[in-house]
Amino acid sequence: MSGEVKTDGLPLNPLRTAAGPEPELLCIFGTGDLGRSLGQRLLQTGYRVVYGSRRPHSCGPVPQGAQVLSHAAAAQSAKLVFICVHREHYDFLEALAPQLKGKVLVDVSNNLKKNLYPEANAEYLQRLIPGAFVVKAFNTLSAWALQNGPSDANRQVFLCGDSAEAKQQVSDVATRLSFSVVDRGSLSAARELEDFPLQLFPEWRLPLWIATGLTASFFFYAVIVDIVYSYVTYKKDTSFRIMVSLANKVFPIVSLIMLSLCYLPGVLASFFQLYRGTKYRRFPDWLDRWMLCRKQLGLLALGFASLHVLYTLLIPIRYFVPLFTLCHYQIRENKTVDFETSTAWYTDSYYSMGILGFGLYVILGISSLPSVSNALSWREFNFIQSKLGYLTLFFCTFHTYLFGWNRFLRSSTYKFWVPPPYMLCLVVPTVVLLLKLLLLLPCVDRTVTRIRQGWERNEPEDESNKALLT
Amino acid sequence: MSGEVKTDGLPLNPLRTAAGPEPELLCIFGTGDLGRSLGQRLLQTGYRVVYGSRRPHSCGPVPQGAQVLSHAAAAQSAKLVFICVHREHYDFLEALAPQLKGKVLVDVSNNLKKNLYPEANAEYLQRLIPGAFVVKAFNTLSAWALQNGPSDANRQVFLCGDSAEAKQQVSDVATRLSFSVVDRGSLSAARELEDFPLQLFPEWRLPLWIATGLTASFFFYAVIVDIVYSYVTYKKDTSFRIMVSLANKVFPIVSLIMLSLCYLPGVLASFFQLYRGTKYRRFPDWLDRWMLCRKQLGLLALGFASLHVLYTLLIPIRYFVPLFTLCHYQIRENKTVDFETSTAWYTDSYYSMGILGFGLYVILGISSLPSVSNALSWREFNFIQSKLGYLTLFFCTFHTYLFGWNRFLRSSTYKFWVPPPYMLCLVVPTVVLLLKLLLLLPCVDRTVTRIRQGWERNEPEDESNKALLT
Amino acid sequence: MSGEVKTDGLPLNPLRTAAGPEPELLCIFGTGDLGRSLGQRLLQTGYRVVYGSRRPHSCGPVPQGAQVLSHAAAAQSAKLVFICVHREHYDFLEALAPQLKGKVLVDVSNNLKKNLYPEANAEYLQRLIPGAFVVKAFNTLSAWALQNGPSDANRQVFLCGDSAEAKQQVSDVATRLSFSVVDRGSLSAARELEDFPLQLFPEWRLPLWIATGLTASFFFYAVIVDIVYSYVTYKKDTSFRIMVSLANKVFPIVSLIMLSLCYLPGVLASFFQLYRGTKYRRFPDWLDRWMLCRKQLGLLALGFASLHVLYTLLIPIRYFVPLFTLCHYQIRENKTVDFETSTAWYTDSYYSMGILGFGLYVILGISSLPSVSNALSWREFNFIQSKLGYLTLFFCTFHTYLFGWNRFLRSSTYKFWVPPPYMLCLVVPTVVLLLKLLLLLPCVDRTVTRIRQGWERNEPEDESNKALLT
Repeated sequence: MSGEVKTDGLPLNPLRTAAGPEPELLCIFGTGDLGRSLGQRLLQTGYRVVYGSRRPHSCGPVPQGAQVLSHAAAAQSAKLVFICVHREHYDFLEALAPQLKGKVLVDVSNNLKKNLYPEANAEYLQRLIPGAFVVKAFNTLSAWALQNGPSDANRQVFLCGDSAEAKQQVSDVATRLSFSVVDRGSLSAARELEDFPLQLFPEWRLPLWIATGLTASFFFYAVIVDIVYSYVTYKKDTSFRIMVSLANKVFPIVSLIMLSLCYLPGVLASFFQLYRGTKYRRFPDWLDRWMLCRKQLGLLALGFASLHVLYTLLIPIRYFVPLFTLCHYQIRENKTVDFETSTAWYTDSYYSMGILGFGLYVILGISSLPSVSNALSWREFNFIQSKLGYLTLFFCTFHTYLFGWNRFLRSSTYKFWVPPPYMLCLVVPTVVLLLKLLLLLPCVDRTVTRIRQGWERNEPEDESNKALLT
Repeated sequence: MSGEVKTDGLPLNPLRTAAGPEPELLCIFGTGDLGRSLGQRLLQTGYRVVYGSRRPHSCGPVPQGAQVLSHAAAAQSAKLVFICVHREHYDFLEALAPQLKGKVLVDVSNNLKKNLYPEANAEYLQRLIPGAFVVKAFNTLSAWALQNGPSDANRQVFLCGDSAEAKQQVSDVATRLSFSVVDRGSLSAARELEDFPLQLFPEWRLPLWIATGLTASFFFYAVIVDIVYSYVTYKKDTSFRIMVSLANKVFPIVSLIMLSLCYLPGVLASFFQLYRGTKYRRFPDWLDRWMLCRKQLGLLALGFASLHVLYTLLIPIRYFVPLFTLCHYQIRENKTVDFETSTAWYTDSYYSMGILGFGLYVILGISSLPSVSNALSWREFNFIQSKLGYLTLFFCTFHTYLFGWNRFLRSSTYKFWVPPPYMLCLVVPTVVLLLKLLLLLPCVDRTVTRIRQGWERNEPEDESNKALLT
Repeated sequence: MSGEVKTDGLPLNPLRTAAGPEPELLCIFGTGDLGRSLGQRLLQTGYRVVYGSRRPHSCGPVPQGAQVLSHAAAAQSAKLVFICVHREHYDFLEALAPQLKGKVLVDVSNNLKKNLYPEANAEYLQRLIPGAFVVKAFNTLSAWALQNGPSDANRQVFLCGDSAEAKQQVSDVATRLSFSVVDRGSLSAARELEDFPLQLFPEWRLPLWIATGLTASFFFYAVIVDIVYSYVTYKKDTSFRIMVSLANKVFPIVSLIMLSLCYLPGVLASFFQLYRGTKYRRFPDWLDRWMLCRKQLGLLALGFASLHVLYTLLIPIRYFVPLFTLCHYQIRENKTVDFETSTAWYTDSYYSMGILGFGLYVILGISSLPSVSNALSWREFNFIQSKLGYLTLFFCTFHTYLFGWNRFLRSSTYKFWVPPPYMLCLVVPTVVLLLKLLLLLPCVDRTVTRIRQGWERNEPEDESNKALLT
């Protein structure tokens, strides 16, 4: 709350004397930053505003045109009261219960951390003043948006509350302030709304850690078998390769692994269901968590794939590349000007697979945009993410196999006697594709489908009760 | 419906004994997969659930915490009844009409095929029990989403019904389950909602067929005049060109044709209106259908254009290309090291047109995203799709003409005495651009504008009645 | 309004004699284009329609199935009246006030220009007939969408009005016509809705002018120091460079400047707040306007950056490039086949910075899509646009510095004694980054944070009243 002293409350002086009836009067408890921002905006929109303050004659400055009264007087003058006070100071409201009875109380408070209190602020407020209609709203907006109107991530006012009429009144105010309103149901959703502004990509954390871990490990591995090896063996400093060449080795590897990690949990879940013979038993927690971040895994994989495409297309521009290819082919030229058709087939297939795989990848990404996936029926979304997704995984894996081609037979491939990074990265996608193939066998597929439709295998002992989620 | 036998219904045992009033009781008819998934989720959200069953003491397993009663008893205990029963078994509900009178019945059923029945399931249900308030809802969600909450394509609950209060009650339940609700109007929209989960990209079918047909034909054509010709004439095996070179010939061709097919129906429609002198007569069915898939045609064209860009940028990486260009220029070098400025102008213009055309193409694509087009006013959307669209078509056509340049004069261009594929593909866009130019002539434009504003040419006989759509 | 004569009104003949109750009757005033399109669609959806006309027996043609009556008779027959009449002819409605009392009047009118009248059409209508419930709706749709149903930019019906029930009735009709409804609040929002269909990217104007101005100036500058210089000094015609090489010089320059212009106002605003010691004083108008078009500035910058990427990747395909690099390296080859590792490090870092910067750029762009930014919490959006945004700016600026490398020491860089364009373009981003660095100093940062949380510096004289916005 603002600590400054202001000598007197301003006289009641509505800004806009619109033709016709007097504009509606709204009450705000609290003259802190939030209360002032909100009040200013309400006044600009044509409402009259009265502030409730402990010291109505010595509170901080309030926007011009607003009146300052004691809490009790302010509450009685309006039907709708915004509570712009920190939760720690809610106690004083209990004494005002008689004046607040039947009023709509808008709880706009946020906490500094999650799970600081056992119950949501709005539920606590409702418990303090059972006679009022508490609506949680506006808390997901920044103070800037409250003062300046909707923009980008501040277009929607989420609200929840137990009284439909109270919600309607708050909804009217929000609409008048040009926000769009999203009703989140009863007051029990308040906790969710209070956690919303605190979150910082919670569902991206795990995928980002996985991506960072994979990138770091494979980068380290590639530095060893590439740069260190070349320095140790030939005394050649190829450290400059770190910036582009190594990056372009590591990015596709991480992308492919993450794409397959995106499809692995689905396959595992099917095997769990097959083994248990029911779909009504909960998956282990780690699998549940993994299932829920598949979208983020896939989008990160797409990001790495895009970087791989850009790095690859850049190759011929780099200053030394023409020199190298030149030398290469001048030597070759002395032997023969012809090139082998089979090698041309192989490299061109390799590139084509990569491009087509990337094209499908991008389609998967586009269909993940909220507005696009909202416009799809569930069957359509499933078709894209499952059918096209496995096709993408197949194309990308095949692309990597073609990259390896017949090198795995040559000993020069195994520097320091370890396989090159791209070989390691083929393990996970290959396993995923083989498991998926197994699931597509008619006999297995039939059982999985039946389980998904609710069928349960008869266990010898009657475990059906245990088997149900609670 | 599940066929297993379960020995006894569980006692009424609400999961969450939240402080305050007893949670609301909801009734579910049917203990099949859908009923169980839904019940489980409702219980987790804090509702009490009672199942209605024909054999309350021997029905399949139900989620722990739910009660099982006879249909009649279950119906009477709750105000809201979910009908999780297949339509074929609706008949038994007729006998329950007295118990269901005044209740809200939520029809969540789907059919296996479209047009299986003369009327929508929900309308049939309403006819069976005229005294109840039928609301169609939840049928567009997967059983997985019903059990686990909203995700991607399963965020919205579409509902329709004739009673506003009934819809509000169902809407409350859906919001509490964290779904967002989309009201689709009266019960007559039920058919539409029931068809929704069955659809698999209906509006993409025709464009996909066109794209496949065009790709196949031009691929075949290109194989003949390129690979077969080279084999027949020079006995050279250039089959490896199929993977990249031919693909990169066919993709831009298909893209350009589809982009022009996107603008052709609009032009044709104008000529129809000009000829008929009114906008109030329906277009032929084929034109209507064509108009409705323009967006999909355009997006597919964008996809092909993107592949063309990737394939083109890849050219210099392919292993034999440096060799070829090298030979090419070494020969040229002996003659002269200079290059002609005019050729440089021509190739650079050719590339610039391509890039700018592709840039505009991408803008068209982005403005087709649902959330973007929703944010645009109709005038803005029209500006992008029409003005920028024709500019894109012009750039891309010009790009192709520049590709041809003066080759059409050389006989070597006409292998097997037929024109190369890119010449064929120029026909449609050229025609579209010429027709559009014709429409932009002031005298024609004025008439079209007047017709679009509702003006009708006076026909000799009074055809005005006939002319109106019905 | 249509001027044709039609001999008689059609008999009342509802199109669909659906089972059950007679379909609802809606009234339309005005038989012009809009009235006819709307009526046709209403009839197709199953409503009955009656037109109100001055000359019921000689008005223009109306859709088959609709009835034509006098205004008074038509108004009395229905509860909901669509006013499809131009605002200039609203006067005649005043005489119908008794018949229109208690009716819902839907104002669908638009004006040809903004600010043509002192008050919104709908507010004027409400003033003419105070006893009716005016709802502004459907005016943002094209006549085509009214006749053919929702598509792309015509999916949403925005409505506003002072009566909730009246809005509900109009909302029902809109939903039945398959549109989704967006409630924009009270009738005072009508002006906004009437301006909406007239707008053509108002917030893009300034950024587009800036982009055009910058592009033109730098293009001109580059032509002088590149092509004219080369012609004057070496008598060489390098004009062909305009199409690709110059474009690829100018695009990244404009992109970088516009990206930094995107972050400059935020930095300036902080300094304003620091200087004034309060956040409650309004910024100067130019700064406000600038702040509001940051998103558009950024998206245009992204567009230019994308063109830069495409142009750059294209370089090795252009026909003369292999020739040039060849000559270049053949000369170099005679001296030494080796290349300097330091140069390789430098070019590769240069490319890597560019790619990573572009990758972040694209992420910024994607998070600006309405559906994506709606799904983000304010904290998340802020993280992306601010933290990642400055990182992008840093990467791109660093990329440009690396491009310059040590050339700024060579006199050959300064053709005509002026710096090359890319040096000029580094000024703005460098300033922005330095200012931001200044703001990140702990002592400065602390003060800014306190001001943003509502703290105000105590001025010697009591200016707190003046300081408040009104």
